[in-house]
Amino acid sequence: MIVVMKPEHTEQDLRQLVSHVEKLGLRTHLSRGERRTIVGIIGERDLIQEIPFTSFPGVEAAHPILQPYKLVNREFKEEDTKIRIGEHVELGGRAIPIIAGPCAVEGREVLDEIADALHALGIPMLRGGAFKPRTSPYSFQGLGELALKYMSDVRSRTGMPVVTEVMDPRDLLLVYKYADVLQIGTRNMQNFKLLTEVGQVDKPVILKRGMAATIKEFLMSAEYILSHGNDKVILCERGIRTFETETRNTLDLSAVPLLKKLSHLPVIVDPSHALGRTDLIPAMACAAVAAGADALMLEVHVRPHEALSDGSQSLTPAALQALLDRVEPVAQAVGRTILRTTAEHHAQVAETAS
Amino acid sequence: MIVVMKPEHTEQDLRQLVSHVEKLGLRTHLSRGERRTIVGIIGERDLIQEIPFTSFPGVEAAHPILQPYKLVNREFKEEDTKIRIGEHVELGGRAIPIIAGPCAVEGREVLDEIADALHALGIPMLRGGAFKPRTSPYSFQGLGELALKYMSDVRSRTGMPVVTEVMDPRDLLLVYKYADVLQIGTRNMQNFKLLTEVGQVDKPVILKRGMAATIKEFLMSAEYILSHGNDKVILCERGIRTFETETRNTLDLSAVPLLKKLSHLPVIVDPSHALGRTDLIPAMACAAVAAGADALMLEVHVRPHEALSDGSQSLTPAALQALLDRVEPVAQAVGRTILRTTAEHHAQVAETAS
Amino acid sequence: MIVVMKPEHTEQDLRQLVSHVEKLGLRTHLSRGERRTIVGIIGERDLIQEIPFTSFPGVEAAHPILQPYKLVNREFKEEDTKIRIGEHVELGGRAIPIIAGPCAVEGREVLDEIADALHALGIPMLRGGAFKPRTSPYSFQGLGELALKYMSDVRSRTGMPVVTEVMDPRDLLLVYKYADVLQIGTRNMQNFKLLTEVGQVDKPVILKRGMAATIKEFLMSAEYILSHGNDKVILCERGIRTFETETRNTLDLSAVPLLKKLSHLPVIVDPSHALGRTDLIPAMACAAVAAGADALMLEVHVRPHEALSDGSQSLTPAALQALLDRVEPVAQAVGRTILRTTAEHHAQVAETAS
Amino acid sequence: MIVVMKPEHTEQDLRQLVSHVEKLGLRTHLSRGERRTIVGIIGERDLIQEIPFTSFPGVEAAHPILQPYKLVNREFKEEDTKIRIGEHVELGGRAIPIIAGPCAVEGREVLDEIADALHALGIPMLRGGAFKPRTSPYSFQGLGELALKYMSDVRSRTGMPVVTEVMDPRDLLLVYKYADVLQIGTRNMQNFKLLTEVGQVDKPVILKRGMAATIKEFLMSAEYILSHGNDKVILCERGIRTFETETRNTLDLSAVPLLKKLSHLPVIVDPSHALGRTDLIPAMACAAVAAGADALMLEVHVRPHEALSDGSQSLTPAALQALLDRVEPVAQAVGRTILRTTAEHHAQVAETAS
Repeated sequence: MIVVMKPEHTEQDLRQLVSHVEKLGLRTHLSRGERRTIVGIIGERDLIQEIPFTSFPGVEAAHPILQPYKLVNREFKEEDTKIRIGEHVELGGRAIPIIAGPCAVEGREVLDEIADALHALGIPMLRGGAFKPRTSPYSFQGLGELALKYMSDVRSRTGMPVVTEVMDPRDLLLVYKYADVLQIGTRNMQNFKLLTEVGQVDKPVILKRGMAATIKEFLMSAEYILSHGNDKVILCERGIRTFETETRNTLDLSAVPLLKKLSHLPVIVDPSHALGRTDLIPAMACAAVAAGADALMLEVHVRPHEALSDGSQSLTPAALQALLDRVEPVAQAVGRTILRTTAEHHAQVAETAS
Repeated sequence: MIVVMKPEHTEQDLRQLVSHVEKLGLRTHLSRGERRTIVGIIGERDLIQEIPFTSFPGVEAAHPILQPYKLVNREFKEEDTKIRIGEHVELGGRAIPIIAGPCAVEGREVLDEIADALHALGIPMLRGGAFKPRTSPYSFQGLGELALKYMSDVRSRTGMPVVTEVMDPRDLLLVYKYADVLQIGTRNMQNFKLLTEVGQVDKPVILKRGMAATIKEFLMSAEYILSHGNDKVILCERGIRTFETETRNTLDLSAVPLLKKLSHLPVIVDPSHALGRTDLIPAMACAAVAAGADALMLEVHVRPHEALSDGSQSLTPAALQALLDRVEPVAQAVGRTILRTTAEHHAQVAETAS
Repeated sequence: MIVVMKPEHTEQDLRQLVSHVEKLGLRTHLSRGERRTIVGIIGERDLIQEIPFTSFPGVEAAHPILQPYKLVNREFKEEDTKIRIGEHVELGGRAIPIIAGPCAVEGREVLDEIADALHALGIPMLRGGAFKPRTSPYSFQGLGELALKYMSDVRSRTGMPVVTEVMDPRDLLLVYKYADVLQIGTRNMQNFKLLTEVGQVDKPVILKRGMAATIKEFLMSAEYILSHGNDKVILCERGIRTFETETRNTLDLSAVPLLKKLSHLPVIVDPSHALGRTDLIPAMACAAVAAGADALMLEVHVRPHEALSDGSQSLTPAALQALLDRVEPVAQAVGRTILRTTAEHHAQVAETAS
Repeated sequence: MIVVMKPEHTEQDLRQLVSHVEKLGLRTHLSRGERRTIVGIIGERDLIQEIPFTSFPGVEAAHPILQPYKLVNREFKEEDTKIRIGEHVELGGRAIPIIAGPCAVEGREVLDEIADALHALGIPMLRGGAFKPRTSPYSFQGLGELALKYMSDVRSRTGMPVVTEVMDPRDLLLVYKYADVLQIGTRNMQNFKLLTEVGQVDKPVILKRGMAATIKEFLMSAEYILSHGNDKVILCERGIRTFETETRNTLDLSAVPLLKKLSHLPVIVDPSHALGRTDLIPAMACAAVAAGADALMLEVHVRPHEALSDGSQSLTPAALQALLDRVEPVAQAVGRTILRTTAEHHAQVAETAS
């Protein structure tokens, strides 16, 4: 930490600061320039970060030198983290899985219809909301456990691992029982109690970036999960809030290479929620893969205009197929491939299930 | 809702839309201009808002006409909501209470020291964190129930009602037991499960605006609470996230008259969290009162540089006194006054407590 | 400047940096921590700020210690700058002038009507657009010199000094000839050629904050003007662009005390453009004065719905009168007053004019 | 335009609105719902857009139906605009040109060194600043005409067309004389006088998106240029201002497919200015091409740490070569290619020049 003293600070101000800091077992390093005196603070990072330097008399500003996150930091672990999900997916590896499904699970039949269409396309993972964070209390809030059961049945039948959101610590056990991957939604990125809870389970967690979260805050939220014992965290860029209103949010794709530089965790992209409209999704899916995304999350519905939630951003299976045709060559161009399950694999699952 | 068709829409697109909408019991109203055909949708607001119009073939855009919130809407209830807290405070009335205290309760002694200083200044309400939402998992997370007890003891001794944050539905009963007013923090403004829970209790709730929440989303979150039965909601503007970094957030004071126009709920301002620095707080406290704020929340600490959280934005009691001297005439200038408890009142409380 | 080296930097990286810096006549100061090596750079501020430190091999980050602005800096000149305009206005003094008028001058008659209404209310300064920056090329672009003449005639008749925008260096002489105060609009805040030009005249300049300008950039633009010789700069907060759409922009009132802390220049507020709607203007005018604004700019039109530009945010004279009644006590509450010209003064002007 | 009346509007309010609108030759269309009365306004778009509907008594809101831009609109011209530059570049076609060079031209020798390196890599277009918009008045402001001459000499020697910024209408003729493509910088996107001027020349214009410009405003600025006669406009996404500070700005890549949907103009991307750091440029260059960019602008310098401006974001020629190797397969994956000049072409130019 670099502490800058005001030009008019007194020697007593300086002594008070130094003495306070040294009492905590930290060291100081003074540098007097022509216009400013600067105090470097050296020692245990966590200790330093908790001191409210600017509330000391005579202090003008404080500049942190080290990043506040540790376990998620690439300095802490150099190699990429890869996360195995089910039998066929290794997220963070060369093959890029697509996680697709409806925003909300609306019923067994429509879910099966969607899942079968996805399965036929070789999509390896299913997403679907059982508990839905809705802006309006009058909107459909999800089917809860019923939805979890329906998705679990899809998994038995197709072998597709299931991703679903957990919104409330009280639902964690329930969701844990049915899901393969837990999702923390954008509105809960700083729900620290929930982060602490999912930090204590042994299933992978997709952590979505908060709509107004800086990269630093995003990584600190991941740090919550890792610091409680769960290192299977997948970072998901899903658009940030800006002044632009033509898209629902602004997809910050530079977050992808940036996060991969700062952290060893895998990074995925959800263009559906970022854009809030289907027409731009294929181009942005290609861009996400070119930027280095380790997976894509996409909303798919067989009849988007009948969807009970987020229909405006849901692709049809036909549109998804067209998207896959565009994305695959881009994946290959950056030395990767889009992960597709095969007929062989499907037969194997069918056999086990029967 | 006004639905705008694409120039190239077909008659079948139009028929599909109209038939879908009318099947739901809504009415339509067609208007063909030179360049665009427009369909007005008339009927039950909630029903209309759930339809994903832009996912219908041939639809270009959809413009809602009515606000999505009802119970919080000034159209629904014309007169200002006033909320009684303890014996002396009527929030939303002519007298403006100041809610002051430390960011986090750090121990009995320091809390008592702060509370006594506030009490001596006639501050009518105490705030203090027992459960703290901290960006870093390594930061002080609050004393929990112990903090609630200390604050409750302050109330017994001084008569100051206690405001504290609840972060987790599982803590609600505990917090409810000790607090007079429950606070929902900015990071939980869209924690809909928590909103649903505090919607079912009978104590006032301070709902802080999310850092990236629009006014509409803010009011929808308040609607969650009212729609579950609790109409004692206090809206709190505490700064929004913008590109400016000299202040921690940007205090959006125009939200005060705007919210009071759109809704009947009282609106308060927290300049401490918005600014993240003490030097601008007195001027902005004056501005908040001039803009129509019904109360101010202020962080106060006897020794800010020793605070375990947010010391940089904590006023000393002496600074608070100076602030009160500046704010009182402004309150009077807008036909109000700053609510101060009196020695008489203090004697009365002391008598009851003994 | 504090330069932080990457953990993996080599000694040669360090030598290259130090040698480059010292060749420029600057001094360095090394501090080796456990995790990072830090190089302090000491010497001439402007020289330091031009070095692209992060492009040196082995450099991780660079933190500037001094503010980049000098002449506008409160450290450079401690006392408030006051700017005399015409005979009756001292902007930055105790009395707060209101600068009012139509967005654009639309014709002699309507201008006279507006100006007479303002004059009757004792408004001391007239604003009006001759050259209008319009988002659309098909919108009314202003009457140009004709508008300047009309305003100049108003001044002769009423004694009101005239504020008008200059958009193009080629119009400067023309505008200079007629106007008392030159305005640089928000879209031109970083039109450095125009800033350089108005830096060379001897009339006051109102510099509006750019919609996405940080406080630092705003002050740097003022520095352009002062560094070219004109120290009569008036800073104008007029709203910044955020995600909120209920108001046209977000009025950043904390900029007022912040700018007054960092700089000695007067700071004024334009709530009309910030809000883009009239209903919130009275409350925010009060808030601006309470926050310390040295003047208010307000759009006023006799028939807002007939205005050729920005009618939605124009107050009627009656609404202005009501606003004045609300703002005056607030001004007094903060030790100031709203500057109003008197009948006596009007008579005097009339005599001179005849 | 759809005008929504307040619930409490009077019949006279309605009559006043309708009569005003019809006097202008527009038609109205009334629709009375249960809660709101709605007035559709039909007729000439430009006329409608100038009416300040919300300043009419009784009006609550106004929703435009048509986009305000015409000539740049895809509805106006369906096929993609392609722009020929020099002999070898057709911007907007299948082959994607890279426009590279230093931020500012600092002298003949260093420019030649850079240009030769670019030429050797087959880069088809040179960019370089002669007039530099600098935040600080104390920073290097560019060499002016000298820089133009140096770049023009590079063109003679290498055949590379030259792109350079014009900041001031008074410099237009000078810049026109030397440059092949005029650039309007982000800070001048709403310098309407300058837009009007470049709308009257016959050379292509690169229009950079303003840092806080919406897509609509961006297209309206392009409309200025087209409406004055110049239809060779190239839109350039270069990052928007958000709360994130790890990158200088946030590259809004979804603007690429969005602009190409709304408009027929070519769209290019400048990742250097958006990111302000070199490490993320290769990934984002790939992403930009995958998103559909028609060209890339890149800052390149032979010795970035000696650059007089923006060194932190300048690639070395070696880094550019590595980037080209990564981007080429991505271009092919989306059915395009990176345009490279060949030895044959170079020989031809050399012959002509001698």
